Amino acid sequence: MPTRIPVILDVDTGVDDACAILFAARHHGLDLRAVTCVGGNAPLPDVVRNTLTVLDILGRTEVPVAAGADRPLLEDPVDARHVHGADGMGDLGRTPSTRRPDPRHAVELLRDALRAAATAGERITLIPLAPMTNIALLLRTYPDVAQGIARILFMGGSAATGNATASAEFNVFHDPEAAAIVLDASADLGIPISMYGLDVFYRPRITREQAAELMAADPAGPAGLAGELIAFQCRRFATDAATIGDAGAVCAVANPEGLRTTPLPVRVELAGRYTRGRTVVDHRDWSGDLTHDPHGQSDVVVDVALDIAAERYAALWLDTIRGGR
Amino acid sequence: MPTRIPVILDVDTGVDDACAILFAARHHGLDLRAVTCVGGNAPLPDVVRNTLTVLDILGRTEVPVAAGADRPLLEDPVDARHVHGADGMGDLGRTPSTRRPDPRHAVELLRDALRAAATAGERITLIPLAPMTNIALLLRTYPDVAQGIARILFMGGSAATGNATASAEFNVFHDPEAAAIVLDASADLGIPISMYGLDVFYRPRITREQAAELMAADPAGPAGLAGELIAFQCRRFATDAATIGDAGAVCAVANPEGLRTTPLPVRVELAGRYTRGRTVVDHRDWSGDLTHDPHGQSDVVVDVALDIAAERYAALWLDTIRGGR
Amino acid sequence: MPTRIPVILDVDTGVDDACAILFAARHHGLDLRAVTCVGGNAPLPDVVRNTLTVLDILGRTEVPVAAGADRPLLEDPVDARHVHGADGMGDLGRTPSTRRPDPRHAVELLRDALRAAATAGERITLIPLAPMTNIALLLRTYPDVAQGIARILFMGGSAATGNATASAEFNVFHDPEAAAIVLDASADLGIPISMYGLDVFYRPRITREQAAELMAADPAGPAGLAGELIAFQCRRFATDAATIGDAGAVCAVANPEGLRTTPLPVRVELAGRYTRGRTVVDHRDWSGDLTHDPHGQSDVVVDVALDIAAERYAALWLDTIRGGR
Amino acid sequence: MPTRIPVILDVDTGVDDACAILFAARHHGLDLRAVTCVGGNAPLPDVVRNTLTVLDILGRTEVPVAAGADRPLLEDPVDARHVHGADGMGDLGRTPSTRRPDPRHAVELLRDALRAAATAGERITLIPLAPMTNIALLLRTYPDVAQGIARILFMGGSAATGNATASAEFNVFHDPEAAAIVLDASADLGIPISMYGLDVFYRPRITREQAAELMAADPAGPAGLAGELIAFQCRRFATDAATIGDAGAVCAVANPEGLRTTPLPVRVELAGRYTRGRTVVDHRDWSGDLTHDPHGQSDVVVDVALDIAAERYAALWLDTIRGGR
Repeated sequence: MPTRIPVILDVDTGVDDACAILFAARHHGLDLRAVTCVGGNAPLPDVVRNTLTVLDILGRTEVPVAAGADRPLLEDPVDARHVHGADGMGDLGRTPSTRRPDPRHAVELLRDALRAAATAGERITLIPLAPMTNIALLLRTYPDVAQGIARILFMGGSAATGNATASAEFNVFHDPEAAAIVLDASADLGIPISMYGLDVFYRPRITREQAAELMAADPAGPAGLAGELIAFQCRRFATDAATIGDAGAVCAVANPEGLRTTPLPVRVELAGRYTRGRTVVDHRDWSGDLTHDPHGQSDVVVDVALDIAAERYAALWLDTIRGGR
Repeated sequence: MPTRIPVILDVDTGVDDACAILFAARHHGLDLRAVTCVGGNAPLPDVVRNTLTVLDILGRTEVPVAAGADRPLLEDPVDARHVHGADGMGDLGRTPSTRRPDPRHAVELLRDALRAAATAGERITLIPLAPMTNIALLLRTYPDVAQGIARILFMGGSAATGNATASAEFNVFHDPEAAAIVLDASADLGIPISMYGLDVFYRPRITREQAAELMAADPAGPAGLAGELIAFQCRRFATDAATIGDAGAVCAVANPEGLRTTPLPVRVELAGRYTRGRTVVDHRDWSGDLTHDPHGQSDVVVDVALDIAAERYAALWLDTIRGGR
Repeated sequence: MPTRIPVILDVDTGVDDACAILFAARHHGLDLRAVTCVGGNAPLPDVVRNTLTVLDILGRTEVPVAAGADRPLLEDPVDARHVHGADGMGDLGRTPSTRRPDPRHAVELLRDALRAAATAGERITLIPLAPMTNIALLLRTYPDVAQGIARILFMGGSAATGNATASAEFNVFHDPEAAAIVLDASADLGIPISMYGLDVFYRPRITREQAAELMAADPAGPAGLAGELIAFQCRRFATDAATIGDAGAVCAVANPEGLRTTPLPVRVELAGRYTRGRTVVDHRDWSGDLTHDPHGQSDVVVDVALDIAAERYAALWLDTIRGGR
Repeated sequence: MPTRIPVILDVDTGVDDACAILFAARHHGLDLRAVTCVGGNAPLPDVVRNTLTVLDILGRTEVPVAAGADRPLLEDPVDARHVHGADGMGDLGRTPSTRRPDPRHAVELLRDALRAAATAGERITLIPLAPMTNIALLLRTYPDVAQGIARILFMGGSAATGNATASAEFNVFHDPEAAAIVLDASADLGIPISMYGLDVFYRPRITREQAAELMAADPAGPAGLAGELIAFQCRRFATDAATIGDAGAVCAVANPEGLRTTPLPVRVELAGRYTRGRTVVDHRDWSGDLTHDPHGQSDVVVDVALDIAAERYAALWLDTIRGGR
């Protein structure tokens, strides 16, 4: 039996974070070691409760969940309840978990898990699906944990167009300094890093009918929850299909062949009147004559996802959720 | 006979500016009223001389040529002789013009031509193919000239990727404040404005063989010059074909059907550590819920060229240069 | 008899611009060659009318007045009618001038006057008392006029604290790009430049009683107007004395001994979230080890006014206005 | 007997950090609970060793010392060995400590000490004398520690002029995001905060003769070290007296009457071409009409040190070091 890939998700659950946790917990090739929480789509206490609720429904109560930063490094906290509902997870009426999270701070849980992995000769894949405040605090406080990280694949950024602003994607916009720190530290510490951004994010989609099937098959269980989350989004945006969102980033860890990435120099713009939070992806050919560029080439090279096997990932997610993996 | 479109080109000749002047002067549907010069690809005196030389070869010595700004509003002057040759126009060995330009400053020539047009009930299409310093000075000094402008179609900017930097296109990068002023003033004064940027710029191409044919057919004349300009670029970049560059923007005025443009909100980023000079094009659907965007929607709506009938324009340019229009 | 100093004022009249014009027109050592107008404290038509009105009252109708830029290069127009009254000049009820200004644009009037001076072997002192839009357009369109400029002494900026924002002074804040252009062009073109900023601006003051004396002595004439302008400000700010404001900059031309200036490197911050429009004055000792400073030393050295003989200037202004110069 | 003030110093020892530790350890009114280290003047391992060495010489080996961040949040690490010597502490030839620091990270030591204080009903005064990376990581990871903080008095910033650049002071310039976080978090969490910046920093001075007396009185002990540190600076800058530098901030905790502070709105500029790292102190009267200020008033009010009893603090430092407190 092939070794499962150890992963930790950092989330702001969040409708599509829930879709991602459901997938990560059920996929046979992934070993979900922990879930860490950060304020983002919803306030931190809601994020923690939603995360615990999803794991309760999955019966995966052994997965440690820790609360982390309750706000971005510098930006004001902004939540996205207009997208994710009043409880941050679609107001689906599921019984909220009453479990307590791990007593450690998310940064400590990450530190301990990564150091333990390094000691055991393992490396864990970090999958941040939210503003990267926790990961930035981790890498600047405990840079030695790089020894326990296989790579970071984060949902965020965009090589082309933004959604929070014309230039910037939400997760990066909500904590641009954190994203800049994570990119910079990854390059310094030798951590491979991949960007699963808006260039691919919206493409793997589940239809309203597929959602209904999931709900019918297992109303109270994980599949039912997954179906409700998709259905919520179809209602919310008045569409016939909805993206699996953050879950696509987890699909890309489980099934890397479905994502076409290109190593490209990237920088995060922190100043700028209209471009703050933009991930500046450099598509130019640096083997040519670019010596006139006053900025030089970025030291940070990121595997940028530029194309995706969207239907394959949608099917992979659906099969995994159904338990047919 | 249909009315010809009155046009004025603002240039920093420049290999591809020369290609544009050749086209504008020979196309039966265009009425080239003047050419104004600005420092950019080459220092201003070279630009003026090159421009006069091209018009000499065309036998169009009646077209007034005026010298304008010799440097950007705020950026340091930067020339592109590494691309355009030591004389700024490919070092082709043509006899430099000894004519004197119009005694007026480019801003005055533009002012006079546009006011005269307005008085005559006409409107002139302005085609800036260089850093827009002259146009910015014009619109801020004499905003009344808007009455004589049909529209502005400028070569510059990019909805996607840059060339001067990862974010910014050369013409805008070389005078970002000028570009920002022109966009802002166009919106304020009701001047329609189109952006012919990197999203389409490189696509209409002429082959080395086609260039050789032009050179053989009319060695000393305009077609020969055109062929030499293309051949110079093929040598310079070691390729088998070269873009008509700026000339594509003039093609788009002569033959608008070949350019697909979309009206989109645009802003020019003037601050930013990595994004100065970026034309921030907003592709989002503002009929949806974008009220969270702290920047709001740009007041400046530009017809952004996103696709081009590249072969049609290449053929149009070739035919026009050959005299077969 | 000693030669009078030829001066041109660029104004946005404006209560204290009026105080400055009154002084410049009456001081025996100054030869007021022209007054150019720019939108700022009040909309441009009001500025022109107010300026003509002041010159009417002075009987100096031979001084040419020209309208210039009606808005800043990039900033939105902002007026200060909450400070200067609805008519921009204190709503004093004076008969508005019905004269027409010079038909030329302010930039053309400046160009012509400066070129004429250069031809005559003279140099004129430019005294901008408003956002420097006109001066920036002038120097970028006609850099040759530097030959006719003795120096520029502008009211604006601050070495210490701001008034428009915590960082920036009003005139510079209202058109920061114009100020940056004027500083940069002055250094490039070899024009000596002095900054009469907030470090000295508020200090020469006239009391309410002195204002009343002026009003009593010559109710309908220049002294009466001057008194009313001071009295207006005392009422406006509920104080017993008011600054002569912009007029102090003209005093500093007439009587340079009253101003202590230090040549210091200066830059205008154009980006910055909180510092846009700040005049960054560098007080450090560059003979020491400042090689670590990533910005290097500014090429622009400005004579920054750091101290003022406030009482002497107040007395000078009062005496000049009274005609006792 | 009056209660001693519990303090923790955060340092990048550093010549003047050593002066500060010497004072804090010997002053009868201060209870030095811990010293935490950050990379800054010197690389982190040097800072830790220097700090332990100073405490060894003081005989205060019970004071816990912990290593923290080895670099700023976003800026590249820059050290000041050109000022502080190759070992970061004047190359005085003292026997380097061979003790190991506390095994905890500085952030953990701070967290534990502050939580313990809160539990014991105490509050500790934090005195950051270096780039505030550790304090920023602390407040964003463990905001609850605010309950154990009496106040923060940091050395850094400037209301007037900079030293690292024309705008910015070294400690803030070296980690501007950290400073911005500390100011913002202090306001959010209700922690009183005081800025001991360049407006007062250089003023308390010890002469070369006084340094020689210290060295003679106690060559191997703390006073001798203190004398050597002052003498090093006098040599380094070729002056007859040297500032006690960071130690002045500790004097201000021990003897608050010697510092005149004013509560003023402050912001840290993070963008800006020339102003990054500036502490923008707002001296304006907000009871007046400042509604036109587009930035509004800062939410962060800092007690800004604007004047100092320099001779009193120099004497206090000297007496304390001599043991004559």
